[in-house]
Amino acid sequence: MQAGHPEGSPEALKAGMKKHGIGPTLMSQILRLSEFHTYPAPGVLIGAFMVDWAQELLGVSPDRKLYAVCETPKCLPDALQVMARCTTGNNRLRVVPIGKFAITLNAPTDNDTADAVRVFVDLEKLKKFPTIDIWYANSPAYDKHAMKMRLQDEIFRAGRDILSYEKVRVLVTKKKKWKSVTCPCCGETVPDYLLEGNRCGACGSMRYYERI
Amino acid sequence: MQAGHPEGSPEALKAGMKKHGIGPTLMSQILRLSEFHTYPAPGVLIGAFMVDWAQELLGVSPDRKLYAVCETPKCLPDALQVMARCTTGNNRLRVVPIGKFAITLNAPTDNDTADAVRVFVDLEKLKKFPTIDIWYANSPAYDKHAMKMRLQDEIFRAGRDILSYEKVRVLVTKKKKWKSVTCPCCGETVPDYLLEGNRCGACGSMRYYERI
Repeated sequence: MQAGHPEGSPEALKAGMKKHGIGPTLMSQILRLSEFHTYPAPGVLIGAFMVDWAQELLGVSPDRKLYAVCETPKCLPDALQVMARCTTGNNRLRVVPIGKFAITLNAPTDNDTADAVRVFVDLEKLKKFPTIDIWYANSPAYDKHAMKMRLQDEIFRAGRDILSYEKVRVLVTKKKKWKSVTCPCCGETVPDYLLEGNRCGACGSMRYYERI
Repeated sequence: MQAGHPEGSPEALKAGMKKHGIGPTLMSQILRLSEFHTYPAPGVLIGAFMVDWAQELLGVSPDRKLYAVCETPKCLPDALQVMARCTTGNNRLRVVPIGKFAITLNAPTDNDTADAVRVFVDLEKLKKFPTIDIWYANSPAYDKHAMKMRLQDEIFRAGRDILSYEKVRVLVTKKKKWKSVTCPCCGETVPDYLLEGNRCGACGSMRYYERI
């Protein structure tokens, strides 16, 4: 935290980024991202460097339509949503709950597979950044309250230095054609491909609420 | 589309909302939401009215921390992300792929269950809005190119008039405690609860890419 800025404020975040020479474009993206996520979580800050690098590696303009896979549901998807405009609702983001801090990004193609770039947190490289290392490992040595700002400072100092990338190929998923069908249990309509047997998920395994 | 504004532009969207007397707060939310989603899809526009009403029904201030369930992965999650600040990455949004245009919203609680409000597109009420009705049913009678602006106009005219709500109770999911474990196949670490047998998902059923 910089003197004069309350911890966690946008001003403190900005000062922390300036200290490590983060450029104005990435800085403004990180501010937007933190607001979207509701706070500057370590995972979204690392995610910002990941998405920024992946976009650069792909060599596409920032407004280009992209498709993303995120290998963890924690924090990281929000960096892809805000910076690469691959959102949960626009169908360009797929979360695969493997549990690794890794993303894959590719441009649209008419082929069945796409060449993509995979950027990931490199466990070897983490060894030079002890606070990020114990935070990432969920070690009891990481004290959230005492070390939060040290962690943030280390993330900004590290930037891309904790990341590696590889070129990969991913399957392209095509839009499903669908018909609206009426569930015989609840009388409501759902897309046919989401039926469980002959009834909808809410009348089957996916019911998650009871009426009160 | 209003004369003088290119179809799909923020100005055309604004003019369309003004025509139907949509208030300035909701209007600015819809503009932000359309930008996030990358375009004003019918599903996010309907979603904006759903989230707005659900928040009002809960009687909470707009900055209150909330938890959401979305019953479709299409468009609607983005309205919850931008307006209710329940995002994929901050763990306050759960998408349950039932295939209904419905959301559930609740405030935090220490109990095992939470009282929530469920807002949904009411098929009976859709009958008064023929363009939304055929769009929602994915009917061949809906012509995307010719009817897009008519659909948008009908959505703004309808507002909450195509929606209903019910009070429900949902299970509260607690944060999982986890340890970092090393996958014997790839040598990388993942949270223990995401292992498939003794190996990580990427070495198991979730591998989604090949190196090139």
